[in-house]
Amino acid sequence: MKLGILGGGQLARMLALAALPLGIRCKVLDPSPDAVAGHVAELLVGDYDDPRQLAELARGVDAVTFEFENVPAAAIEALANQLTPVAPNPRALAIAQDRIAEKTLFAQLGFGVPPFRAADTAAELAAAITAIGTPCLVKTRRLGYDGKGQARVAAGADPNHAAAAVLAELRPDLPADRPADLIVEGFVPFDRELSVLAVRSRRGEIAIYPLVQNVHRRGILHLSTAPAPAVPAAVRAAAERFVGDLLAHLDYVGVLAVELFLVGDRLLANEMAPRVHNSGHWTIEGARCSQFENHVRAVLDLPLGDPASNHPIAMMRNVVGSMPERAAVLAIPGAHWHDYGKAPRAGRKLGHVTVVAPDTSTAEAILARVPEA
Amino acid sequence: MKLGILGGGQLARMLALAALPLGIRCKVLDPSPDAVAGHVAELLVGDYDDPRQLAELARGVDAVTFEFENVPAAAIEALANQLTPVAPNPRALAIAQDRIAEKTLFAQLGFGVPPFRAADTAAELAAAITAIGTPCLVKTRRLGYDGKGQARVAAGADPNHAAAAVLAELRPDLPADRPADLIVEGFVPFDRELSVLAVRSRRGEIAIYPLVQNVHRRGILHLSTAPAPAVPAAVRAAAERFVGDLLAHLDYVGVLAVELFLVGDRLLANEMAPRVHNSGHWTIEGARCSQFENHVRAVLDLPLGDPASNHPIAMMRNVVGSMPERAAVLAIPGAHWHDYGKAPRAGRKLGHVTVVAPDTSTAEAILARVPEA
Repeated sequence: MKLGILGGGQLARMLALAALPLGIRCKVLDPSPDAVAGHVAELLVGDYDDPRQLAELARGVDAVTFEFENVPAAAIEALANQLTPVAPNPRALAIAQDRIAEKTLFAQLGFGVPPFRAADTAAELAAAITAIGTPCLVKTRRLGYDGKGQARVAAGADPNHAAAAVLAELRPDLPADRPADLIVEGFVPFDRELSVLAVRSRRGEIAIYPLVQNVHRRGILHLSTAPAPAVPAAVRAAAERFVGDLLAHLDYVGVLAVELFLVGDRLLANEMAPRVHNSGHWTIEGARCSQFENHVRAVLDLPLGDPASNHPIAMMRNVVGSMPERAAVLAIPGAHWHDYGKAPRAGRKLGHVTVVAPDTSTAEAILARVPEA
Repeated sequence: MKLGILGGGQLARMLALAALPLGIRCKVLDPSPDAVAGHVAELLVGDYDDPRQLAELARGVDAVTFEFENVPAAAIEALANQLTPVAPNPRALAIAQDRIAEKTLFAQLGFGVPPFRAADTAAELAAAITAIGTPCLVKTRRLGYDGKGQARVAAGADPNHAAAAVLAELRPDLPADRPADLIVEGFVPFDRELSVLAVRSRRGEIAIYPLVQNVHRRGILHLSTAPAPAVPAAVRAAAERFVGDLLAHLDYVGVLAVELFLVGDRLLANEMAPRVHNSGHWTIEGARCSQFENHVRAVLDLPLGDPASNHPIAMMRNVVGSMPERAAVLAIPGAHWHDYGKAPRAGRKLGHVTVVAPDTSTAEAILARVPEA
C-alpha cells in the first residue's frame, strides 16, 4: 500500500514514520528539495499547483492526503481528476481554510464560538470593532497559522484609528477595489486552551483522543498536557459530542483537530485543523495508537486504532527556533526526543520532547530538565 | 548525524526507524536492491566484501554497525581502514561467529554452558557424540541461524552411524582434507528458554532490559514474553551479572543478546548475538527506550536510554512465511503491527505483532485474535 502526501514537513515525516511499520510507504510533494519527509518517503519536488507533479503524486498510491490546510484549490481539482481518493474531502478543507465558514458551521452545529464579524473595508472593520467591543482580535480570514496574520486591538482603542492601523499591518498592499477579507473576533478571557482530536474512517467509525490542554507562547504551541487535567465530565462529553457531530456533518475522513477555549464550565470552539495536529504529538508515546497511525489508517480505509491514553499523563513541549544539544536531551531519563531534521530558523518548529509519566508533577520535573534552546 | 549499517533487512529497517526521530539518518549496504531498510534509509547495493561499497558506506557516517553477525572478516578490515568507528568491535563479532569460542568464553566468565565438544572428522564426531551422550545436537560451528545448520542425534543412536548421517546432512560436499567445523552440544532438558538483552555505551555505561521468555517453533522464535514471568530474583541477578561481565570483558558497544536455558533454578548460556535481536522487538512498545534506539545511541556515543518496561507485560509474536491480512490485524484493539515490507517466502520472518497489557492473560487473549497466516 502507498500513501501520497501534499507537503513534506514534520507532519508528513511523522505520518511516513507511522505508516512504515504497517507496511505502507509514502510519497510526498513539496516545493523544497530539503523537505524533511524526504528522509523517510519518496520526495517529489514541485509546487503544490504543478499539474505534472500532482499527477505523479497520485500515480500508484491508494489515497492522497495533506499535511497542511492551505492547499490551493487547483491542487484539489487536479488530484480529483486523477481518480485517487483524497482525504479529508475538499469541502472540509475549504471550510477549514476560512475562519468565517468554520465559525459559522460550529455555531450551526450548536456549539459556542467567540463573537465574530467579517470585515472587507476600513469602514466595515471599524463597525465590526465597535460591535464586538475592545479588546478584540483581527485576523486574516484565510492562510493564517502560528499567530501569523493576526493583530490585537487594545481595550478602549478608537475603532476608526484601530481599523486603519490593523488594515495597514495585515493588508499593507491591498488595492482599493479588493476586499480585505478580515475577521474580527471577540477577545475571550479563557481559563484554559484545550483541543480535541478525533479521527473518522471511510465507513464512519469515529475514535476520539483524550482532551488536550495547550499553552501557547508568541502564538505558537508551547506545551500540551493529555489528558487535560481536571476537566468536568460534562465538558469532556460536550467536546466529544461536538467533534463527533462535526466529523459526521463533513463526512470527514482522517484526523481533525479543534481548538477550544474553556471559560468557566463553558467551551467555545476557536478553529479547526483538517489534519494531524501539533497538540496530538504526545500520542506517539502516550496513546495506544498515535494520531499519525490513525490518520494513515483512516485515509487508506483500514480499521481505526485505539485512541486511549497509554499512561496517566503525557506532556509534549515544542522546540522552536534553535535546537538544544542532542546528547543533553538524550541524557534525561524519560524524555522522548523528536528532532525533525530541519534547519534552525527563528520561530520555526524544529522538534518536540514528549514525557509520559504516572502523574503531572513527575512529567513536569522531567520536562524541566530539557534545556531551553 | 549519520549511521552506516551492514545489512538492510528488518533489523536495519527498525534501527533506521528508531534513529530518525533522534535526527539521525542511516545508510545501509545490502546485496539486494529490494532490501527493506531501503524504504527508510539510503541503500547501497553491493556485496558485503565489496571494498568500493564498504568505503562508500563508511563515507560521511559517524559510525558503522551491523544487523547480522556473520560479517566477512574482509568487511571488518575494509571498514577499519576507513577510520570510521565500528561497533560492536571485531573481536566480539569473531567470538559470536564461533559457537566454540562463545561457549568457551561463557565458561571462562564462570557461567554455566551446555556440555559441548568440537569435531572436525567423522571419528571425532562419533567420539564427541559418545562423550556428550544422546540425545544431543550437532551444529555447524559458524554461520547457523534460525535452526539452520543443525541436526539432532536421537536418544540411543549409534555414535558411528549418527556421525556419518549428520556429516552427510550438514557437510554434504566436504573435501576429505577440510575440517568439518562442527560442535556437539548436550541436549539440555530446559524448563524455559530465556534471553537477556543489554546495551553498553562507548564510555562503559550499561543498561539491561528485563529478562525475556522465548518459545521457538521449528527453530525460529515464535513468541517472546517480557518480563519473563515468575523468574526468581537470584536467577535474574545471575543473568544480569553475566551479561554485564560479558559486555565489559568484550569492551562491547551496542546491544548484545544472550540466549539462556533455565533448568530448575540454574541458568545455562546457549549463544549470543552481537546485535539487536528478535527477542527484543517487544521493546518498541514495551520499554521506555527500545533496543533499536539504544543500539543507535550506543554506537554513536550518545547517552543510553532507560531499558525499563513501560507496561506490566509485553508479548511479541513473529509472523513467518506468509502474511495475515493487514486489515484483520489492525482491527484487533491493542495489537501493534510491524510489517517489514518483505516478499513472503516459507520460513522467512515477515513481521511481528506486539501487545502490551496489564497482565499475561489479557495479552494472550489479544494475541490469540491475530490470524495464523
